[in-house]
Order: sequence, then structure tokens, then C-alpha cells
Amino acid sequence: MAETLKPLVFYDFPSKKPGVNAWNPNTWKTRYSLNYKGIPYKTIWVEYPDVASTLKAAGIAPHPTTRKPDGSPMYTLPVIVDPNTGTSVSDSLLIADYLDKTYPDKPILIPAGTRALHEAFLDALTPNFYPTMRFSMLKICEILNPRSEAYIREARKNDVLKMLNAASIEDVYPKGDEAEVEWKKFEEGMKNVAKWMDSNDRFVMGDTISFADFVLGGFLQANKKMWGEQSKEWKDIASWDGGRWGRLLEDLQKYDRDD
Amino acid sequence: MAETLKPLVFYDFPSKKPGVNAWNPNTWKTRYSLNYKGIPYKTIWVEYPDVASTLKAAGIAPHPTTRKPDGSPMYTLPVIVDPNTGTSVSDSLLIADYLDKTYPDKPILIPAGTRALHEAFLDALTPNFYPTMRFSMLKICEILNPRSEAYIREARKNDVLKMLNAASIEDVYPKGDEAEVEWKKFEEGMKNVAKWMDSNDRFVMGDTISFADFVLGGFLQANKKMWGEQSKEWKDIASWDGGRWGRLLEDLQKYDRDD
Repeated sequence: MAETLKPLVFYDFPSKKPGVNAWNPNTWKTRYSLNYKGIPYKTIWVEYPDVASTLKAAGIAPHPTTRKPDGSPMYTLPVIVDPNTGTSVSDSLLIADYLDKTYPDKPILIPAGTRALHEAFLDALTPNFYPTMRFSMLKICEILNPRSEAYIREARKNDVLKMLNAASIEDVYPKGDEAEVEWKKFEEGMKNVAKWMDSNDRFVMGDTISFADFVLGGFLQANKKMWGEQSKEWKDIASWDGGRWGRLLEDLQKYDRDD
Repeated sequence: MAETLKPLVFYDFPSKKPGVNAWNPNTWKTRYSLNYKGIPYKTIWVEYPDVASTLKAAGIAPHPTTRKPDGSPMYTLPVIVDPNTGTSVSDSLLIADYLDKTYPDKPILIPAGTRALHEAFLDALTPNFYPTMRFSMLKICEILNPRSEAYIREARKNDVLKMLNAASIEDVYPKGDEAEVEWKKFEEGMKNVAKWMDSNDRFVMGDTISFADFVLGGFLQANKKMWGEQSKEWKDIASWDGGRWGRLLEDLQKYDRDD
């Protein structure tokens, strides 16, 4: 099958920032997955306000479980369409399942027996990644094209900003002493995650790369792109926990293709 | 070595409740671990106010990381002492590590590569188990001998009750409509955990038993002992998620020794 594999279609979010292509932590999970398995694909870049209409037009179903606040179906990225099987899949973890099942002779993303542990890993990360939110909402706006930026600013008013009782993304961006406190929380969150691992292990599963590394890698890629590789902030993140986060992105560099 | 293995010493908390021996969710993790590996051991039952003095007298170190609110060292159970190697270990996960490393020819608790995923699994469980706290604080008092009960009631005043701004364990025990709401939260928490797994899988890692099952099993055992096997509450828990929690304890029954 490998010889004749037609390229998959992979939907991702574009960037206006010079030198930055893929930047979204969730689509990076799938991008890493595809690159690691060595599966050919072509990226279709979609602006946020066009996601639902683009996927609908391509006959792709909404996310199987994620819903809008009003309970209606929601279209999210990443999505892949596999012309070799006629299948489309939403959600990075479900895409990993699909790729392992359909292409079991290529490197495995979720080693046998670890599916539920991977789910728990994703759940356990959430509170540790949460402190970045107040920073990243604004930094992402610097990456988005104007139509996506407007769309995201409106969407945040109806979820995170409503929850925080704030008017704008700028209002919640930590400033002055608060910025130091919030940055420290971010560092503490990453320290919690680092503690799960042996400091000598390069990957979550030790010497074996797995989808869990692509979840961490996606989050780190997003930060690297948001802050900029030469920024004080990224250098800080990359240095935390004995430099393990910078080293992880280096170790994953050969799966970095993002065109 | 198996032929000449001297029994390990295993420290656990006693019960005054008729028909209940081991009941603590944390010591059950180790009890299951020892039973699963088939390692001989003898239980020493210790009342809460005697834990520190008993372990100190036996030359055992406090927990390596857990601290009292004032920052001083803390003695916790489970603890094992292995006379075959002269080693003592606190903390159920570290005991699992020790047992796998020292007795690698016996069934493995933490399969290769899954150590960090197990840590994440433990972290991910915490918020899902949290809704039981307001129930279990009182139900545990029905199991404890009077000296332990007095000790635990005093300890809770300085942590959970202070946090909840409440005077007594009785005050926070959910009553009437609130009991229904809180019980529902418990059910929702267990549903979150069940969602990580394939409904056909008996164990967290599928067909393979691992330490993760003993963490769930310990929590379920504690509930079964607190509520009583014939109680409405235990029957309810055992029935949730297609009966998977009752079935798990049945599947683990051969590792149930608790003398």
C-alpha cells in the first residue's frame, strides 16, 4: 500500500506572522503524528470563520463529542481526509487511532495497552497548561490573519472572557507584577508535568516516542511560535526543568515539516 | 530467591467494623500489588496516632515528598519493609517501583514505558475522586477505632474542614437534595474515568493488569467497605458505567487477600 498511498488532506490554521507556518497546538499533534508515521499529506489552510463551511462543503462531519455552548454541533481542526480509504476524522487523538489502525506497519503512535493512559495523560495536562491561557489568547492574535483574529476575539467573549468577567483579551493579559506571578504559575505547571517523567528519559514513554510526546510537542511548538524562537520567554520555557522542553522540540525536529 | 523469600512487613490501618479488615484506598494499592506479584507479607496494623512513632521506632524514613502543612516531614502508610534486602519504602507508587525492580520475574505492576503515564493517570484521577470526600470523611469514622477516629477528626479540622470553612465532618456531609447533587457529581467523576477506557476492556491497559487497576481497585474497595457490600450506595457505584466498577472488583478478587 505504501507505494501507491495517495496524500491525505490535512486541515490546519494559517499564520500571518513572518517565519511561522503551523502554530496551533492541536493541529500540531496531528502534524507530528503524520510526519512521524511518514504518511504523505497536503495541508489545506483554513481561516477560523471558514472552518464549518469548508468542512461541510467537503462532506466532513462535525467533531463527534465537542459541542458549542448552545449544544449544537461544532466543527474543529485538526481534520484529516484519507482518499485511500474514503475516511475523514476529526480530533487529534481519534486521528491517531485511525492512523495506527489503518497504517499499523508504520511507527505506532499509541502503543498497545496505553490508549486509556493516553486519555488520562491528556486530562492531567489540562490544569497544568491552563496558566498560559491569559498570555496565549493575545499572543495568538499576533499570528492570526485579520478575519480569524476578529472571529477568535468574538468567540472568547462568549467563553473564557465571560468566565473571567473581562471585556477584552488585552484586559486579562497579565501585566507588571502579575505577569511575573502568572509566568511562575506556568513554570509550576510545567514542573508538575516534568515530575511525571524520569529526568533521564527523553520521551514520555522513555526511549519510545508516542502520541503523548506530540501533545507536549504541539503545546511547546505553539509557545515557540507565539513568543518567537529568540524571545526571552521561549528561552525561559526551553530552559525549565533542566532544559527538557527545549530538548524535546530538538528531539522531535525531524518530524517538524509544516508546509 | 522465590524459595527462600522472607515475608515482607506491610503496615496498614485497622478497622473496627465487623467483616471489614483493610479499607484504606492507598494501602489497598500496595496490598493488591503484593498479592498480584505473589510476594509473601505480614500485615502490621497501625492506628493513625501511632504511625509516626511506629515507623520511627522501626528506623523507617518519613514520606520522601509529602509534608505536613507546617513543612515538617510526614509519616504515611502504606509502608513496606523488605527483610530480604533491608529496604523500607513509603508511598504506593514507589513501592510498586521497588517491587518491580527487586522482583522483576514476578508479574510486573508498571509495564515498561508507562511509568510517566501512570503518574499522569494518578493526577488525572484526583479531581474525579474529589466529590467523594464529603461523604467519605464521615463514613471512614464508622470504620476507625476510637483513637484513630479522634486523630482523624482533629486532622481534618486543620485541612479539609478549614478549606471548606466548616466546623465538623458531620456539617459537610451532604444531606437531602444536596446529597443527590453530590452523589451525581461522584457518578459524573467516575464517568469521566470510564470514558478513558474502551467499554470492552476489563483493565486500564486492556487485557493486561497494571498498577493503574490497583489504584481504581483501592478506591472501589474503600467505597465497598465504607458503604457496605449490601448497601444501596455500593450497588449504585458497582452499576455505573455499564457495571464496570463492580466487575473490576470481581476481576481483582483473586488479589483480595487482606489478613
